[in-house]
Amino acid sequence: MSSTAQPYTFSQRAQKITSSTIREILKVTERPEIISFAGGLPAPQGFPVDTINAAYDRVLRENGRSALQYGPTEGYAPLRAWVANDLKRVGAAHVSPDEVLIVSGSQQALDMLGKLFIDPGSKVLVESPSYLGALQSFSLFEPRYQSVATDAGGLVPEALTDECVRDARFIYALPNFQNPTGTTLNLERRKALVARCAQAGVPIIEDDPYGDLRYAGQALPGLLGLGRAAGATVIRLGSFSKVLAPGLRLGYIVAPQPIIAKLVQIKQATDLHTATLTQMAVYEAVNGGFLETHLPTVRELYKQQCGYMLKAMEEFFPATTAWTHPEGGMFLWVTLPEHIDASELLARAIQQNVAFVPGEPFYAGDDRRINTLRLSFVTVPEDKIRQGIAILGRLINESVVGLNSKAA
Amino acid sequence: MSSTAQPYTFSQRAQKITSSTIREILKVTERPEIISFAGGLPAPQGFPVDTINAAYDRVLRENGRSALQYGPTEGYAPLRAWVANDLKRVGAAHVSPDEVLIVSGSQQALDMLGKLFIDPGSKVLVESPSYLGALQSFSLFEPRYQSVATDAGGLVPEALTDECVRDARFIYALPNFQNPTGTTLNLERRKALVARCAQAGVPIIEDDPYGDLRYAGQALPGLLGLGRAAGATVIRLGSFSKVLAPGLRLGYIVAPQPIIAKLVQIKQATDLHTATLTQMAVYEAVNGGFLETHLPTVRELYKQQCGYMLKAMEEFFPATTAWTHPEGGMFLWVTLPEHIDASELLARAIQQNVAFVPGEPFYAGDDRRINTLRLSFVTVPEDKIRQGIAILGRLINESVVGLNSKAA
Repeated sequence: MSSTAQPYTFSQRAQKITSSTIREILKVTERPEIISFAGGLPAPQGFPVDTINAAYDRVLRENGRSALQYGPTEGYAPLRAWVANDLKRVGAAHVSPDEVLIVSGSQQALDMLGKLFIDPGSKVLVESPSYLGALQSFSLFEPRYQSVATDAGGLVPEALTDECVRDARFIYALPNFQNPTGTTLNLERRKALVARCAQAGVPIIEDDPYGDLRYAGQALPGLLGLGRAAGATVIRLGSFSKVLAPGLRLGYIVAPQPIIAKLVQIKQATDLHTATLTQMAVYEAVNGGFLETHLPTVRELYKQQCGYMLKAMEEFFPATTAWTHPEGGMFLWVTLPEHIDASELLARAIQQNVAFVPGEPFYAGDDRRINTLRLSFVTVPEDKIRQGIAILGRLINESVVGLNSKAA
Repeated sequence: MSSTAQPYTFSQRAQKITSSTIREILKVTERPEIISFAGGLPAPQGFPVDTINAAYDRVLRENGRSALQYGPTEGYAPLRAWVANDLKRVGAAHVSPDEVLIVSGSQQALDMLGKLFIDPGSKVLVESPSYLGALQSFSLFEPRYQSVATDAGGLVPEALTDECVRDARFIYALPNFQNPTGTTLNLERRKALVARCAQAGVPIIEDDPYGDLRYAGQALPGLLGLGRAAGATVIRLGSFSKVLAPGLRLGYIVAPQPIIAKLVQIKQATDLHTATLTQMAVYEAVNGGFLETHLPTVRELYKQQCGYMLKAMEEFFPATTAWTHPEGGMFLWVTLPEHIDASELLARAIQQNVAFVPGEPFYAGDDRRINTLRLSFVTVPEDKIRQGIAILGRLINESVVGLNSKAA
């Protein structure tokens, strides 16, 4: 009997994990000849390499042994205080450093919040569509997703009916330049959302990695400040990935202290703490107000890139295709004529050396729209954007013609 | 009804988390007047600050934009290859870089392995006692622990009876200078362990953060190489925390490719990937053979520190007290006369400004021995070691006298 023993047995949750569509696509897009609108990479010319190098050097020269030692799970105290103070910019005054927990990138925050809130079968509210990485994190804890409708103005508060919110453990929302759609929740809806969640006792997870990348329209207060004023529980996720650099893996969670206290215990079991050196170097880099001078150049770059893509789409996409007009961030969302399957379009596009991400994996519920896709515009040069969009436009047109001829 | 809605509901697993004893103790030991043998911190004078600073500087100057960008979940390819090759030193030849996954410290590996293997109620085998941080990680996934007996020679292979190993998802073992006991598994037992696990189909998680810190006795082959030869599934955890510095948060998992592939999916959902910059800088630091010149100085330092403590214990501890004689690592384990409760001893020791960790939380099963404690010797100066051990010796003697007078 022993000789036939299985070498190992995976957990139920691990057996359910399937390969990410985006991940498989990204493998193809590493080929240099591919014009890829599929990535989620920020533009590397926006990384302040010299500032970061100077910060590491200063920390290691002046406090090397502390920077290389284990540190508190909560995070480096001066960085927590910096984050607490910085939240005034998004309309949340009076946040205490004790309400800030430093994490190893926002994705880790999603994993920890899954651990904190989700039992198998727990109801979790997500925008439809929502950030794929969040769905992957939460899914490890086997929730039951309830989709919340969105439109060009973002999440629709009226969709939060009594039945929808009942027993929900939380709602996960991306109010600014959402990944994947690029849409922004307007002020009226923000207020309606926090009021509704306060009344229903549903915590809001506000994921805002792109908020500082606004290059059009007017800045709006975040859900954290609005929610606190309305009596809602808001857990805000922030990140240094888009304002400094993603390769640092640094982010933070802001929440009421009882939630932070429990998350600290979870983080201790998850990875002890976030790298001390990284935290001290980032604090050193941002402490003197560096982001105020740095961010305008990043915003200008992203605005230009977004403009190149929108201009090309106007020129090459058929009138039957619709797309969002982001006020910031890295993505826009395309809705093809119905009955065009974006996955099928991708297969043909890759043959022409153009890649994007089909919309389907961003949907958690059964309201999937297979005629949608996400385009990232930040890392591709202007001429390649134009060339790639021209190819996509031609392929979409061919599909439309194909459909029409079938219909005829 | 809405107005009385609860603000939030934690998951079952989160509700079960209790505060770590070590963590609460460490808060007290931050007071400068405390002589703390409680910590698990490596000696900071062993951190190669200048080498690390030079490595960061070089990486940022030469490859700054790549180092600051998102990277592959598997890890930085040259570092994976370095790890695969380095395993020859512990007797594992022919490891492929595809069998290496870079993680954000060994603690993260434990979290990911919990996700991979543990369903609620799954049987998990752990040494008695075992590393507290591993018990904390695994416990989030609600296993059923089965303790495996240990003695001065480490884990006792004969304790792995048919009933013990039946349906076990894995055995978690620390073969070198175990945390908390400081004991080392001898070669005969290593061979018996891997043979038994191969036969029973139980994967072995070999956690070896201290293996490079051997300062006495003879180096022994790791379970990875022995296990592969014997047909066992071995998952090896390594760390740069003790050979370079823990504040970097960098470690790795070595396992058969099908396990690595699943762990990569789990890591993607857990934190996307480990910091690119950290991986590139550590590769830059270790690539030229730096550890071969650096490690002897760390070993010499730890050997001295261990010697100071052993000498003081010989002088001040009563004959009724026993302790381990580590061949490496950072800890030793004390067994007090039975009926002396180490937690009660700690309360009295802290009043005399001396701290340690009671043994009880290191036990997962019902075989807890409350008359045990862990001492760390690496960060306390010689005179303070002597002073602190003298105080502990006096307090133990007082307990013995107290017991004797009660008995009389």
